[in-house]
Amino acid sequence: MQSSPLLETLMESLRCLPGVGPKSAQRMAFHLLQRDRSGGMRLAQALTNAMSEIGHCEQCRTFTEKEVCAICTNSRRQENGIICIVESPADIQAVEQTGQFAGRYFVLMGHLSPLDGIGPDDIGLDILEQRLQTETLTEVILATNPTVEGEATANFIASLCRQYGVEATRIAHGVPVGGELELVDGTTLSHSLAGRQKFKY
Amino acid sequence: MQSSPLLETLMESLRCLPGVGPKSAQRMAFHLLQRDRSGGMRLAQALTNAMSEIGHCEQCRTFTEKEVCAICTNSRRQENGIICIVESPADIQAVEQTGQFAGRYFVLMGHLSPLDGIGPDDIGLDILEQRLQTETLTEVILATNPTVEGEATANFIASLCRQYGVEATRIAHGVPVGGELELVDGTTLSHSLAGRQKFKY
Ligand SMILES: [Zn+2]
Ligand SMILES: [Zn+2]
Repeated sequence: MQSSPLLETLMESLRCLPGVGPKSAQRMAFHLLQRDRSGGMRLAQALTNAMSEIGHCEQCRTFTEKEVCAICTNSRRQENGIICIVESPADIQAVEQTGQFAGRYFVLMGHLSPLDGIGPDDIGLDILEQRLQTETLTEVILATNPTVEGEATANFIASLCRQYGVEATRIAHGVPVGGELELVDGTTLSHSLAGRQKFKY
Repeated sequence: MQSSPLLETLMESLRCLPGVGPKSAQRMAFHLLQRDRSGGMRLAQALTNAMSEIGHCEQCRTFTEKEVCAICTNSRRQENGIICIVESPADIQAVEQTGQFAGRYFVLMGHLSPLDGIGPDDIGLDILEQRLQTETLTEVILATNPTVEGEATANFIASLCRQYGVEATRIAHGVPVGGELELVDGTTLSHSLAGRQKFKY
């Protein structure tokens, strides 16, 4: 768009968003300019606020603009004594939506990945170790992803827990509810078989 | 994300972008916070500048932060005497990329759509009429989309041109170059047959 350097800059800048290529950047820019300038201004303000003010919770590392997040400061959840370890803040939401968990979380913001130079301290395990040492915890639920890296990370944290005498559990892997057996991959099916439980009549 | 109202606001604001639902808004927000805060800040600035400073060219209506855009002020293009009428600024880019056109443009920013209350003045035809009246034009190329609305709009503008004694032409419709005949729809094929030209040996 030789006609507008500002439009050019906007289209380039939109491409910092994941999944946005040149075509959709153009579509987005035109849409905002033609139909939703106030939405574009609100987005600019929301970006500025979020980028400059959101940090990580001192206790669980999730995104928050406070020093300690609302879940960590909730006394009921503190008394619960269980910590659920997840890879990303999005996973907290997923677990919260089940309504099955009333404890607190710890967000790794990734997983161990020695080849990429991501070691224990990079995923906050120094902070977690401190918590294992000082808090009265009854259980640590390892809810990292069922990937090679997620499993390795779970194993590493499990041994950390044993060191401090805190029980570690791993979420069950298996056939997704509503899924079809023939569509499930072999590894999942193996996990599903190995993790079989007595039938409840 | 009860842990961060600012993050909540950011995810909501991102949804003003076309094609962005709750899932991708979350993915975008997390990506920026975790990996590209400077990109997020640049995007905020680009949005603010674009939304507040980009207007429409007084002569062709395309997006520009100047009163008259670079194409319209180009004296070579003025001397060319041909105006190509398109529906959106993106179409200018498409035509420019062919390298086949050296005239100026007129951007409708839409098409006639009486049912939606979009009449001639809403697509700038009052401005176009003024130009037909005052400028020395040799041809107006109607490059609106080959849709029902695009055709109706082209017809309307063609009669406007006739009124002012300016020749109007319509871009050719037909089988796309590199396309397969059997994959082309019937209407396109009819246009292609009706618009057939003598074979050039
Ligand atoms: Zn927290
Ligand atoms: Zn112009």
